[in-house]
Amino acid sequence: MESLADKDNPQGILAIVHQRYTPIDELKHAAAPGAQKIRCAAALISPQDPGNVGTILRTIDAVGADALFLLDGGVELFHPTVVRSSMGTIFWKQIIQASFDEFVRWARKGNFQLIGTSAHGDVDYQTLVPQTPWILVLGSEQKGLSTVQSNACDVAVSLPMKGRVSSLNLAVAAGVLLYQYCVGQVDELPNG
Amino acid sequence: MESLADKDNPQGILAIVHQRYTPIDELKHAAAPGAQKIRCAAALISPQDPGNVGTILRTIDAVGADALFLLDGGVELFHPTVVRSSMGTIFWKQIIQASFDEFVRWARKGNFQLIGTSAHGDVDYQTLVPQTPWILVLGSEQKGLSTVQSNACDVAVSLPMKGRVSSLNLAVAAGVLLYQYCVGQVDELPNG
Repeated sequence: MESLADKDNPQGILAIVHQRYTPIDELKHAAAPGAQKIRCAAALISPQDPGNVGTILRTIDAVGADALFLLDGGVELFHPTVVRSSMGTIFWKQIIQASFDEFVRWARKGNFQLIGTSAHGDVDYQTLVPQTPWILVLGSEQKGLSTVQSNACDVAVSLPMKGRVSSLNLAVAAGVLLYQYCVGQVDELPNG
Repeated sequence: MESLADKDNPQGILAIVHQRYTPIDELKHAAAPGAQKIRCAAALISPQDPGNVGTILRTIDAVGADALFLLDGGVELFHPTVVRSSMGTIFWKQIIQASFDEFVRWARKGNFQLIGTSAHGDVDYQTLVPQTPWILVLGSEQKGLSTVQSNACDVAVSLPMKGRVSSLNLAVAAGVLLYQYCVGQVDELPNG
């Protein structure tokens, strides 16, 4: 138990689970009758901090969003810190790994509104009313979105930064935006 | 350098700084002419995760809030993870350490509205319009606010949780609420 547990004084519970991934190609068929549709989701490009990925999964569950896209690599999805900070959501929320280019092609076919986030975004986050279905696209902690990635989005929103620091923590930015766009909006949408 | 740096491959920069604390007794005199007034702030009760404390300091800077209260202990303020995740804000934002009881007495004298946060809060966070000056009060990651602490607040707000998880990460909850209550409101207030 000590050798398998990541922490000192483990609580004495172990579970063996299947790692579940959804290939983006299978997702193409989600428009079929009865399939789970994605109404709103978040996409992370090469995230570097496993705590951020798990925390964002936890927030996705809280706001009732449908999926997380992990694009162009970044942290290992089943890193112990991702699993722990996701509070178990990693086992029931849909998680799709793909390249950024595959993701954009898939999203275009499904008429998703891609909402980029950037310190230089030209739209204040409070003024945007997303068009369902939509996906919030967040760059990595260090680099944010590149110009190419930002241009691939339909709109780029920014969060006001009133102090000396130029950006928010990635999971905080995702949380503020997901609550802004999901709460009060998702319930009214047809599911599936 | 290797022995002083917390990380492998340190970037080669060191700084020696004074640890700055503001005792809550000195803060009592902040109403004097010219003194920096606190219009809005956050208070954390016994936070356990240094990453959360630093991340909340970073958010406090971003939204233009004035101070962070650390109540009833919790993580060491100058823990390396707090310093790093605060992105330097730890060196310029006002940070006050006190007991919860001292804090409540001080806040009452200054007519602060204390906004508690709880999964069982009776006010939806979106319906509250805070009365300046106000302080957002957040319990610890594991325990949240106790009944006594919640009753000491003027109002208790809750964030909708639409999934299976019962709470948000502390720094995400603080971020959603600070953006909700600060952005678009603080600029119009007189400073000092």
